Amino acid sequence: MHANRIVSLRRRPSGHLAADDLAVIDTPVPEVADGTVLLRNLYLSVDPGVRNLLGSDKGHMPAVPVGSALTGSVLGTVVASRHPDYAEGDTVQGRGTLGEYSLITPGPLTWTVDPALCPDLTMAQGVLGVPGLTAWFGLLELARPLAGETVLVSSAAGAVGSVAAQLAKAQGCRTVGIAGGTAKCAYLREELGLDAAVDHHGKGPDELAAAIGAACPNGIDAFFDNVGGMTLDSALPAMNKGGRISLCGMISQYDAGPAHRFEHLFQAIAKCLTLRGFLLFDFVDRYAEAASGLLSLVQHGKLRADCTVVDGIEAFPDALCRVFSGAGTGKTLVKLQHRN
Amino acid sequence: MHANRIVSLRRRPSGHLAADDLAVIDTPVPEVADGTVLLRNLYLSVDPGVRNLLGSDKGHMPAVPVGSALTGSVLGTVVASRHPDYAEGDTVQGRGTLGEYSLITPGPLTWTVDPALCPDLTMAQGVLGVPGLTAWFGLLELARPLAGETVLVSSAAGAVGSVAAQLAKAQGCRTVGIAGGTAKCAYLREELGLDAAVDHHGKGPDELAAAIGAACPNGIDAFFDNVGGMTLDSALPAMNKGGRISLCGMISQYDAGPAHRFEHLFQAIAKCLTLRGFLLFDFVDRYAEAASGLLSLVQHGKLRADCTVVDGIEAFPDALCRVFSGAGTGKTLVKLQHRN
Repeated sequence: MHANRIVSLRRRPSGHLAADDLAVIDTPVPEVADGTVLLRNLYLSVDPGVRNLLGSDKGHMPAVPVGSALTGSVLGTVVASRHPDYAEGDTVQGRGTLGEYSLITPGPLTWTVDPALCPDLTMAQGVLGVPGLTAWFGLLELARPLAGETVLVSSAAGAVGSVAAQLAKAQGCRTVGIAGGTAKCAYLREELGLDAAVDHHGKGPDELAAAIGAACPNGIDAFFDNVGGMTLDSALPAMNKGGRISLCGMISQYDAGPAHRFEHLFQAIAKCLTLRGFLLFDFVDRYAEAASGLLSLVQHGKLRADCTVVDGIEAFPDALCRVFSGAGTGKTLVKLQHRN
Repeated sequence: MHANRIVSLRRRPSGHLAADDLAVIDTPVPEVADGTVLLRNLYLSVDPGVRNLLGSDKGHMPAVPVGSALTGSVLGTVVASRHPDYAEGDTVQGRGTLGEYSLITPGPLTWTVDPALCPDLTMAQGVLGVPGLTAWFGLLELARPLAGETVLVSSAAGAVGSVAAQLAKAQGCRTVGIAGGTAKCAYLREELGLDAAVDHHGKGPDELAAAIGAACPNGIDAFFDNVGGMTLDSALPAMNKGGRISLCGMISQYDAGPAHRFEHLFQAIAKCLTLRGFLLFDFVDRYAEAASGLLSLVQHGKLRADCTVVDGIEAFPDALCRVFSGAGTGKTLVKLQHRN
């Protein structure tokens, strides 16, 4: 077997993540040990959460050592299995090395993709995959919006946010998205059908808070937040009493710069807010329910599955940086082109 | 009737609250209008929450105009009533002008104090009053600690925190208090019987986080927070998965200085935390249940009712500043000495 090209950490990022903080290198294809599955990958997920594993001054999570492989969400075909639940030829979603091949130890983020339930493989890591499930539980279980309520979604043009926003619309909510730039805001209104869009580009905290307030004249009942920091803070003044905030991600805080000074956190008391963080794999027993709900919405044309696909593992570092700079709408994937 | 001496706002505070930001002035005793009750006050509550109404650069709440009376929690004898639920001679707890007399419009924070259910009138604004009820619902309904869990309480020597900490002990929890200074920490351990005390004096964020972590070797399951800012942030790394944080107050943020840079808020996601703010009067239907539970604990010697009493309305401005500087344990009250 030829070498396995993988994405590795060349050096610890300093400030904003730079593409050359990462390297694409050749490594041996791993041996299949008991209880593991070897995937020949078709797609790699370009997920901002990967940033959390690369280390920084902040150290939200244990960081991978410099020189080591990056880990993320992958989709591949089983080429060897020593696990009873997975057979050669299966198409499997899992977490493993971001490379042409991944050795997977199946866990709560591993499952077989049923082609009958996934019209397009790019959906398996998008609207019908981890981002879709994350949006489902984060919105419906934590933010719990009711029809007629106002829902705010940040990073609403992104992989998770775009699903959360469409689910809120499908619930009958007045849905407002925050995104960066006029093109993305037009996408939110015209393509996803949101009721309003707030462009955060060029706005300081007070301007962002004012724009959110103007876009939510009846206040915000539920907020699905992917961004944290200034975005989270700026939404607080417009929250209604008893409002729910689903803390899904804090993409603004993974990267460079000092942590945000929260000016409005007292609103959590004044408005009796509930802020809840969550991790998808705590809902592992209910993936099937969510996946079937998501698929039904796709089939009924209520959930678009937009994605940006870039070709080849060499494109991964740049694609990850582009996710942070806010390029693209929906899910970003790297499609692998195997040489054999 | 002679004049009514009241506490008024002399000037908008700039930086830390100063005693001479407030003034004690003579005003006319108000006329009793339909639906109101006139109290001749016995005690005024010296409550850090009053600070929130005085205005600042931050403006958490609508501020009272300069020159106007301060409003707060008062306890007095009804001298005139045009409200069917209150009769002359009743002892009533309510919210009104902080003065010798208060005209009360009864609301969810007004009730008659039954001498049979309140062994000492100083308890009516402390352990059996608003602070006690606040601690009861904030701890038992929001933080919901189970026996054997670890509970952290900030401002644990204060009016609300001291009750919350004792309730946590009564629930069978390992209870850790944060307070400022060795004397208060000794009070927490030796008088309130807490399992450990963390002295925040002289500690920066990292030192405070380390001290909290050391005092909570099994992590924190429930955190009753009165302080916000650095204290809230510094407790986040030690929170256990699924931990609950009851946001009761943010005394650190009411006063001077820039808002806190939150370094550890991502822990809310990584640990699936729930942070909930609350306001006591949303529990108005359940006050009686809580008051009877609190009284029972007092009668069984499981809940101490420590308070600091200062004499005369002229002492109010200084006493409020002293609450912010962390003087005293338990509830601080001003006892009024009527001239007639």
